[in-house]
Amino acid sequence: MLEKIDLSRSMDREEYKKTAPELRERLGALQRRARAARVPVIIIFEGWEASGKGTLMNELILPLDPRGFRVHYVHSSRDDNQNACWPPMRRFWDMTPPRGLIGIFSHSWYRLALDGISSPEERRTAYGDIESFERALALDGAVIIKFFLHISRKEQKRRLEKMDSDSSSKWRVSEREWSENKNYDKTAVKIDEMIQYTDRDYAPWTLIEATDRRHAAVKILASVTRRIEKRLDELSHSTQAPEAYAGSAVSEGPGGITFAPSVLKNLDLSRSIPREEYEKRLPKLQEAFRELQYELYKVRRPMVIVFEGQDASGKGGCIKRLTQKLDPRGYQVSPTSAPNDWERAHHYLWRFWNSFPKAGHIGIYDRSWYGRVLVERVEGFAGGDELRRAYGEINDMENEWSNYGTIIVKFWLQADGEEQLRRFNERRQNPDKMWKITDEDWRNREKRDLYEEAADEMMLRTSTTYAPWTIVEANDKLHARIKVLEVSAETVRQALGIR
Amino acid sequence: MLEKIDLSRSMDREEYKKTAPELRERLGALQRRARAARVPVIIIFEGWEASGKGTLMNELILPLDPRGFRVHYVHSSRDDNQNACWPPMRRFWDMTPPRGLIGIFSHSWYRLALDGISSPEERRTAYGDIESFERALALDGAVIIKFFLHISRKEQKRRLEKMDSDSSSKWRVSEREWSENKNYDKTAVKIDEMIQYTDRDYAPWTLIEATDRRHAAVKILASVTRRIEKRLDELSHSTQAPEAYAGSAVSEGPGGITFAPSVLKNLDLSRSIPREEYEKRLPKLQEAFRELQYELYKVRRPMVIVFEGQDASGKGGCIKRLTQKLDPRGYQVSPTSAPNDWERAHHYLWRFWNSFPKAGHIGIYDRSWYGRVLVERVEGFAGGDELRRAYGEINDMENEWSNYGTIIVKFWLQADGEEQLRRFNERRQNPDKMWKITDEDWRNREKRDLYEEAADEMMLRTSTTYAPWTIVEANDKLHARIKVLEVSAETVRQALGIR
Repeated sequence: MLEKIDLSRSMDREEYKKTAPELRERLGALQRRARAARVPVIIIFEGWEASGKGTLMNELILPLDPRGFRVHYVHSSRDDNQNACWPPMRRFWDMTPPRGLIGIFSHSWYRLALDGISSPEERRTAYGDIESFERALALDGAVIIKFFLHISRKEQKRRLEKMDSDSSSKWRVSEREWSENKNYDKTAVKIDEMIQYTDRDYAPWTLIEATDRRHAAVKILASVTRRIEKRLDELSHSTQAPEAYAGSAVSEGPGGITFAPSVLKNLDLSRSIPREEYEKRLPKLQEAFRELQYELYKVRRPMVIVFEGQDASGKGGCIKRLTQKLDPRGYQVSPTSAPNDWERAHHYLWRFWNSFPKAGHIGIYDRSWYGRVLVERVEGFAGGDELRRAYGEINDMENEWSNYGTIIVKFWLQADGEEQLRRFNERRQNPDKMWKITDEDWRNREKRDLYEEAADEMMLRTSTTYAPWTIVEANDKLHARIKVLEVSAETVRQALGIR
Repeated sequence: MLEKIDLSRSMDREEYKKTAPELRERLGALQRRARAARVPVIIIFEGWEASGKGTLMNELILPLDPRGFRVHYVHSSRDDNQNACWPPMRRFWDMTPPRGLIGIFSHSWYRLALDGISSPEERRTAYGDIESFERALALDGAVIIKFFLHISRKEQKRRLEKMDSDSSSKWRVSEREWSENKNYDKTAVKIDEMIQYTDRDYAPWTLIEATDRRHAAVKILASVTRRIEKRLDELSHSTQAPEAYAGSAVSEGPGGITFAPSVLKNLDLSRSIPREEYEKRLPKLQEAFRELQYELYKVRRPMVIVFEGQDASGKGGCIKRLTQKLDPRGYQVSPTSAPNDWERAHHYLWRFWNSFPKAGHIGIYDRSWYGRVLVERVEGFAGGDELRRAYGEINDMENEWSNYGTIIVKFWLQADGEEQLRRFNERRQNPDKMWKITDEDWRNREKRDLYEEAADEMMLRTSTTYAPWTIVEANDKLHARIKVLEVSAETVRQALGIR
């Protein structure tokens, strides 16, 4: 593909002076409109060494209000210890711009594929991860603009030699730059592959002939202007705009999908354990799990444990017993409540990438990203396409975590309506527990059936081989706690091959 | 000091069973009250290796709602590349708990002083930084509880030997632990020094005799309970509670201090530069500054440039010219507006520590932490003691940055009232600039004199040798832009010894 590009394209000073200022003015105005419309914009600069990324980024930035954009310089992931502690996409999630702002990337997540020593398998995994990432952001309303700055091998050599001969720029030319020039043809094949794999309608690549600075600058300004304009137009012609991109991936209505009879309706909720047995088994299980925590730490594999379930189903009690003997330095409980305004300004998965446990640590979630398909569905905050999309996005995320070596356990705690009522009343009457019960809990209780329906569909769609759901019969708290500890420990043992 | 501690203290099972549960219940209730009162709590566990930090932290955590606390395990700063890129306290600012939550630290900022190879000078600098940090947080309302877990050399040896002989805990004993035991007496001297230097009324140390687990656990529970209770009591007896701690460091009223006649009133605002000269000098200055940016990058020194000034004083235009030719990968413009709810849940300086530029990078602030003593003062959001305290806190922060090698330049742009009015009217009439002017600007204009008074006091109190203010006569925009570039470049040259 790259060899087909006409690199001789150029623009004379006259034409540049006619074209550029007008584009800049339009871009300045568009930035303000995008901000008002809360549209996030992501602009990536990839390209050969010495293709002029810095200069061309400056041309783009010139008309922008500095309060509305942020430049990220992405180092090679291999340069940085920190990155080794988390799944590769985590740091990029962290960099996504909030709604209405512009994120400009000098190099980007494509580093994962373009880094010199990546194997074909690593590249394919990276392309898969990148695809889910860009798709999730695009469907959430982001405009994604990707530039590849192209120069010929000869031109690159000429530029490197020139930099090398000037004492003020000499230090910027290292072995790495020269080695790219030496392996130009091999790298070109990888770039072709990258563009083929990741050129999508929602995140297309634009090749920039970067021999001539003026031509390149104008092409970049024009592309950015056109793409933002297009999105703003779409928004003004549609009431439910980001959805427009969702296409018809799934055609059924939310919650209107019929499937196998509810698994939650057919549970044996009478399962229980006598207290005497519980008190004998609990400490042993806790100690065993503590030992397994150290095993995880030694092999540096992270673990994610999710707790979902209706109010008063006993999530808090299970978490308490699960963590009671753990080393507090190696786990973290993350309660999930309604997002704050900064979180709301990002994709709904953003905050969970942020709280992902470090390698060797355990992240315990008291409610989680599944709120998207539970409370947000029942309350109508997320609907239609958003909801249908969420299942796939969540599976993709958990798949990435799993590929990184993460052990994932997900519990749905199920107590029936009678038992819930009994616990609500108990909380109301016990002064030490009163704080646990609010009006909202009573309101949620009226929607029990809707929550169950949502939970059923959630488990159907997100029980995967790498991250299966475990339903915990929770009418008897003692049974629930023991089961949670047993399943957690057993999953770790299986994953680490411990017997 | 340590040698005076009676390490034989213990508690029998009976008494523990009587005392601990009651303390736990009280602590659980206190956590809820502290949350409601939005009081942040910081609990530090320092102590000898094998003194039982993990177990004792667990005893403390047991009664707590996991949704309301977070455990931080602080690694040695020397273990981590990332930390080398920022002033040492930055990562600790990032870990401060938001209002109403509890941050529990296994090791802490005292690592900076206790790390084996620190020199006496490093330790003294660390104590100074720690003092400003803890004082700022305490005055902002945080309860700070610091435990040192103490065991004898013999007891430590016994524990290490026991761990070493058990296959499941053997891996936890490394050279480091044994070396501490070997150098026990020398380390004890450093610990004594640390406690002497950093034992403050607002952040006192509690020594825990940690030979006996039950004694230690109960003492920790009792201390935490008492300290939180005390703060909540103070709050309920005072209308302006965090202030109670401020003491009488400064006795004058806000803004009521009389000092030398306003420096802003005596400026020669007629200073100007002909456009022809401007257009000749600007590109040269920009190129020179770009070269200096590379110099900063090479020696890995960060630079902070602050812009303050009334509306329409030309901050945006100056920033644009300052950055126009810079490498966009090496600077970041941070606009400061009203804090969002997450930022508001922390100390007002928290967000600025977060955006501090990496070593070798330039952080440019369009308004800044000085908002505390400008807009917040004029609008009455911060008053009385808060305001008086702010000058010192800001000086401390800038001093820490400067000690780390940061080059700090601060500009106050001063245009007079007539010129401001002219610009406001121009903005109102020009469709491309209309968005720049809001009703708020007009309201602020009515408070021009109050802002000037605040700016005067600010410059008097925060012009330091390491971070002086530069007043820029800004009636003529061209003069202002040239002066900003000249002063910025000159400051870098002086700091790096370039001629």
